[in-house]
Amino acid sequence: MAKTAVLKGNMLIAQSGGPTAVINQSLVGAIEEAKKHKEIQHIYGSLHGIKGILEENFIDLRKESKQTLDAVANTPSSALGSVRKKPTPEDCVKLFHVMKKYNVRFFFYIGGNDSAETTHIINQEAQKANFELRCFHICKTIDNDLRENDHTPGFASGAKFVAMAFMGDNLDNRALPGVKINVVMGRHAGFLTAASALARVYPDDGPHLIYLPERAFNVEKFLADVKRVYEERKRCLIAVSEGISDELGAPIAARFSKEMDTHGNIQLSGSGALGDLLANEVKTKLNISRVRADTFGYLQRSFPAIVSANDAKEARSVGREAVKLACSGNVDGSVAIRRKPGKTYKVFFERVPLESVAKETRHMPDDFINADGNDVTREFISYAAPIVGPLPKIGRFKGVKVAKK
Amino acid sequence: MAKTAVLKGNMLIAQSGGPTAVINQSLVGAIEEAKKHKEIQHIYGSLHGIKGILEENFIDLRKESKQTLDAVANTPSSALGSVRKKPTPEDCVKLFHVMKKYNVRFFFYIGGNDSAETTHIINQEAQKANFELRCFHICKTIDNDLRENDHTPGFASGAKFVAMAFMGDNLDNRALPGVKINVVMGRHAGFLTAASALARVYPDDGPHLIYLPERAFNVEKFLADVKRVYEERKRCLIAVSEGISDELGAPIAARFSKEMDTHGNIQLSGSGALGDLLANEVKTKLNISRVRADTFGYLQRSFPAIVSANDAKEARSVGREAVKLACSGNVDGSVAIRRKPGKTYKVFFERVPLESVAKETRHMPDDFINADGNDVTREFISYAAPIVGPLPKIGRFKGVKVAKK
Repeated sequence: MAKTAVLKGNMLIAQSGGPTAVINQSLVGAIEEAKKHKEIQHIYGSLHGIKGILEENFIDLRKESKQTLDAVANTPSSALGSVRKKPTPEDCVKLFHVMKKYNVRFFFYIGGNDSAETTHIINQEAQKANFELRCFHICKTIDNDLRENDHTPGFASGAKFVAMAFMGDNLDNRALPGVKINVVMGRHAGFLTAASALARVYPDDGPHLIYLPERAFNVEKFLADVKRVYEERKRCLIAVSEGISDELGAPIAARFSKEMDTHGNIQLSGSGALGDLLANEVKTKLNISRVRADTFGYLQRSFPAIVSANDAKEARSVGREAVKLACSGNVDGSVAIRRKPGKTYKVFFERVPLESVAKETRHMPDDFINADGNDVTREFISYAAPIVGPLPKIGRFKGVKVAKK
Repeated sequence: MAKTAVLKGNMLIAQSGGPTAVINQSLVGAIEEAKKHKEIQHIYGSLHGIKGILEENFIDLRKESKQTLDAVANTPSSALGSVRKKPTPEDCVKLFHVMKKYNVRFFFYIGGNDSAETTHIINQEAQKANFELRCFHICKTIDNDLRENDHTPGFASGAKFVAMAFMGDNLDNRALPGVKINVVMGRHAGFLTAASALARVYPDDGPHLIYLPERAFNVEKFLADVKRVYEERKRCLIAVSEGISDELGAPIAARFSKEMDTHGNIQLSGSGALGDLLANEVKTKLNISRVRADTFGYLQRSFPAIVSANDAKEARSVGREAVKLACSGNVDGSVAIRRKPGKTYKVFFERVPLESVAKETRHMPDDFINADGNDVTREFISYAAPIVGPLPKIGRFKGVKVAKK
């Protein structure tokens, strides 16, 4: 529908989907920016996404001090609470009823592809209902699987956690050799699992094998890979995505799970079953005694203080940009992060249509995955390393052997 | 046996048992100190504990630069490699044969209670064999279960990781409410699991329930606790030690494991089975839909950069002290950390007999555990907080509610 160029009213912002370490940076960026725009009067925060709107559960974000805003920005997980809920057309009628009551004209939804879909649905339904509303999606997801984006806020900090965990675990596995399987988050996209490769410092460092959802997972092939590495190195550190799927596309982890959200996603995290299954295969089929599995779980997305500096900065900017754009005229959309060509890492932001990031996800490009489907390529490292930024320094003895007597 | 007061010869140092984030601080502390003592000629590092001695697999630690030593000190996991092996009397004969060939007269073994037992056995057998050898155990264990010690090197950094993980996961659980179970390391002692309580900042923060190996675990009592907390708070964050045992003292996790080391320890870590079992109980018996379990696993003991400053400093000092004592005369033993009475946190070091820290472990004292057996007391917080040191700051909105219209 035709919208007037200048719109005045209240702003409503909410968070949705899985938290990240920097999702509050975007929230605080949006609040800071909103305060600069006269078009925006009240700044309401809805608790637990659209559920909070349906329940009229709002807090007044203008009442928060600068000190609190900064502290919240640097705190992981969704400060406004989150939800996993796809709105029905009936929900939208109720949402608009509430929004009108509170004179909400600016709506911001921070989340991943499902939250972009929610924003898109709300935008379309608002147009159908002739309700003038600026709708912006503010991207976040540790999975890094949003289309249109070079990368998404939250990914770099999650990737930093995964890389650091593998750095330490590689040293652990080197000290007490065996087969170690680490299951990393990532439903459809392997970016976060692939980030384990950033842990490598020395040529013999793990992960020695990396399995991504982008390639069909075959247990026999997996066992042959592990056998080969173990025979060569007497140890084997493995990164496995929770989303690995068989030749028919069915997630291996889904064999243990029946839980599904309203966006149709099967629950994969919050269980050690996949790691334990694979460890058991290695133990029994390859007859290796020391086999362990860890599932990194929710620590990856909400660990305090392990934050990529780029990520924190970009997340803040994306929040600011969304408000700037919403106040600039008759537009809706999502703010995408693009990378400038050139040797130095630089990004810029661009508005993209809501439907271009909603629902469908992005996968690892083919040139990021090796031919054998069990590792990443240099192209991936070149892509990911500058986004994640510096990692802790690891020391190792020169190790001059004492001649045997 | 009678030992001469002044002994000269080479030094052999090794690491054993589970790694920690600061175990290399002790190693480097010992090397640094050894360089100051003329009695010590070569400084040999054995790779993978006593296994490396039996195989004459040594590196020359005098060949490492100061820069490398500092880098290694700040690197988690055992830089010399580790092993889990209890020496038999026959092993000892071989060990002494090798030690004599390399003129080893100073032996240092960095590890927990099992490694203290190994050091004690070697010391006793050396005395029986009339082989003059200074034997020192240098303590480390994230479990904090060594007798004679106020706390052990490695604990504070492991505790910091656990507390930070719970800080983040509490925020995650607050954003997406449900029941969340986190399984923490600790075979017989609950100190590390108890450290989850350090994560609490606000009165409603989790962990809301803490289960330790020091109290018999009863599934019905556990379910009743979870039900009560969940009904009150609509969420429940739970810390469970991997070592929780039933009324008969059998570890719950042992129901899934048959693996045992030569010290007689059943493998508890490296599997998500315990967490999944408890999550399934809550899901089915309490009919709560969102129930998740994470097992922190090996990340707790070897995560880079998450180090307590006290811990790093004390670990270095313990290594130095052991060498100082070994060069001071006819003594063997283990270096224990004691705390000075008074308001300010201060420690000192004391030599204790090897047998006083070997084999048997220390448990959480009764006054650190609440009467209901599902939480820690203020006494525990007073004990642990200064050891662990400062944690990241967490921000939260004041959250002024918008009046409903």
